[in-house]
Amino acid sequence: MEQLCIVTTGGTIDKIYFDDKSDFQVGEPQIGRILEELGVAFRYSVIPIIRKDSLHITDEDRELIRATIAAQDARHVLVTHGTDSMVQTAQVLSTLTDRTIVLTGALNPARFRGSDAEFNIGTAVGAVQSLPPGVYIAMNGRVWHPAKVRKNVAANRFEAAD
Amino acid sequence: MEQLCIVTTGGTIDKIYFDDKSDFQVGEPQIGRILEELGVAFRYSVIPIIRKDSLHITDEDRELIRATIAAQDARHVLVTHGTDSMVQTAQVLSTLTDRTIVLTGALNPARFRGSDAEFNIGTAVGAVQSLPPGVYIAMNGRVWHPAKVRKNVAANRFEAAD
Amino acid sequence: MEQLCIVTTGGTIDKIYFDDKSDFQVGEPQIGRILEELGVAFRYSVIPIIRKDSLHITDEDRELIRATIAAQDARHVLVTHGTDSMVQTAQVLSTLTDRTIVLTGALNPARFRGSDAEFNIGTAVGAVQSLPPGVYIAMNGRVWHPAKVRKNVAANRFEAAD
Amino acid sequence: MEQLCIVTTGGTIDKIYFDDKSDFQVGEPQIGRILEELGVAFRYSVIPIIRKDSLHITDEDRELIRATIAAQDARHVLVTHGTDSMVQTAQVLSTLTDRTIVLTGALNPARFRGSDAEFNIGTAVGAVQSLPPGVYIAMNGRVWHPAKVRKNVAANRFEAAD
Repeated sequence: MEQLCIVTTGGTIDKIYFDDKSDFQVGEPQIGRILEELGVAFRYSVIPIIRKDSLHITDEDRELIRATIAAQDARHVLVTHGTDSMVQTAQVLSTLTDRTIVLTGALNPARFRGSDAEFNIGTAVGAVQSLPPGVYIAMNGRVWHPAKVRKNVAANRFEAAD
Repeated sequence: MEQLCIVTTGGTIDKIYFDDKSDFQVGEPQIGRILEELGVAFRYSVIPIIRKDSLHITDEDRELIRATIAAQDARHVLVTHGTDSMVQTAQVLSTLTDRTIVLTGALNPARFRGSDAEFNIGTAVGAVQSLPPGVYIAMNGRVWHPAKVRKNVAANRFEAAD
Repeated sequence: MEQLCIVTTGGTIDKIYFDDKSDFQVGEPQIGRILEELGVAFRYSVIPIIRKDSLHITDEDRELIRATIAAQDARHVLVTHGTDSMVQTAQVLSTLTDRTIVLTGALNPARFRGSDAEFNIGTAVGAVQSLPPGVYIAMNGRVWHPAKVRKNVAANRFEAAD
Repeated sequence: MEQLCIVTTGGTIDKIYFDDKSDFQVGEPQIGRILEELGVAFRYSVIPIIRKDSLHITDEDRELIRATIAAQDARHVLVTHGTDSMVQTAQVLSTLTDRTIVLTGALNPARFRGSDAEFNIGTAVGAVQSLPPGVYIAMNGRVWHPAKVRKNVAANRFEAAD
């Protein structure tokens, strides 16, 4: 893996508490800081393309994400994304057949104790350098084909779709 | 991946502070607790075969690890191991060619703030379900062939060997 | 200090992320869990009287908090409260002159990495057993008289009032 | 409290893992970093006088600690110290009757998840600005007179002495 291209789109993984707003919103992408503190042994670049809760990601946004990735040289791409519409974005990206793209996110913000963010980023990093070209989702420690996974909202986890 | 077989051998990843001993030793394996708290979507079993700092792992220990894995049905195996002699153990396991085996560990104990343990376990989990049969090392966010990696002790990180 | 009476009212200290609501709200009081995990050497009881962001605490709520404390035997009381109107509640409690009451809270939720919650609870615990009867606020590592402190909202910290 | 003088002597609170030594030793004092990250509202200075496990603190060391404090102008002093001989050092400091001195430490290193360090530092900070001149120990959430407390080594906690 020559260089990992990371595209960030917002989502729970990047939610932080803004005390002056008495509210909890998507903040700066966390993945760059996390990988830097870990001292990872690969080169990477971060493109913070949008910063949205994925319930609010539109088809225009998905096309923007697709076009952004298509314009990059990197053959390995990691996308951080909200969990609510991650499957839909993965399906839109499926037209990009010449690189390995793994989407991940978190069910608890990276800034929260007990967050799944670092583990999920790790799963995606392990998968993206190991898989053949295609689009995949890494959540709950599994690597999924987008057509075969869904988020079970009530259970707050990803599971195999019929 | 039907079921992940996890073999634990000790190492820094499992070191904890024993206040009554005023010392810091390998304790109970952490990986089971970590995966349970994360709510991973795969079945796994944990075989805590030895509990040693890897500077003290002997050839007999390595043969025990190999024989333990060989006796399991699982085609996917994750081994947690100290970082100092991880490469040597990986080389001994290379005779097992019919399953995917990924070794990982941590440079800072799982119980420590800022530990690389969860990220490394994630990398190994993403890799083990994505790679063809063989033996691999997952450290510092990369997936390595054991013949092509070494631990740079002074720099406290894994890097490509010549 | 025979027994510490703890009254919880909500506030940022108890805010958690509800993924199914895609929102961040006051959850269960954290202080009981925190003190239990720390193994503190004093007896305490927790009265979770209300669960509100303190911007929404009313005069009726303040009277309820006052009456609740007045009805207890304990001479030492710790109140966890949102930071936005903590000073106002402290002023209402000033009519209770026969016990030591310390209010505290947090600028970052207890569940967040880097939260000030445990430190603030510690400051309040150290103060409540050391001070003469009266009402005090413990924030940012200082113990304040309610008439002489305010929250600087822009700076997100407590400071001496003129 | 005009300014808090902090004297650090080592102990479990400052123990960190040195991977290159495959060992766990007293490292740099943690309290300055902790107070800075918390944004406390008081001025303080840190005097890192010794860096020892308190089982190895000698009478000469205790005299050095006493003389160091005696030479300072500050009327409020916080000492971080190993828990094993904290009571002995507190007794030596009891000859300093003109200032408020609180000793604290931790049963788990500050760098460890679930450490009692921040809570204990908070307890000591709340106590040191609230108590009359004298020497005190703040552990397990209580403020103790040195003559009336001991460390129960087997139970790994502080308790009232007969």
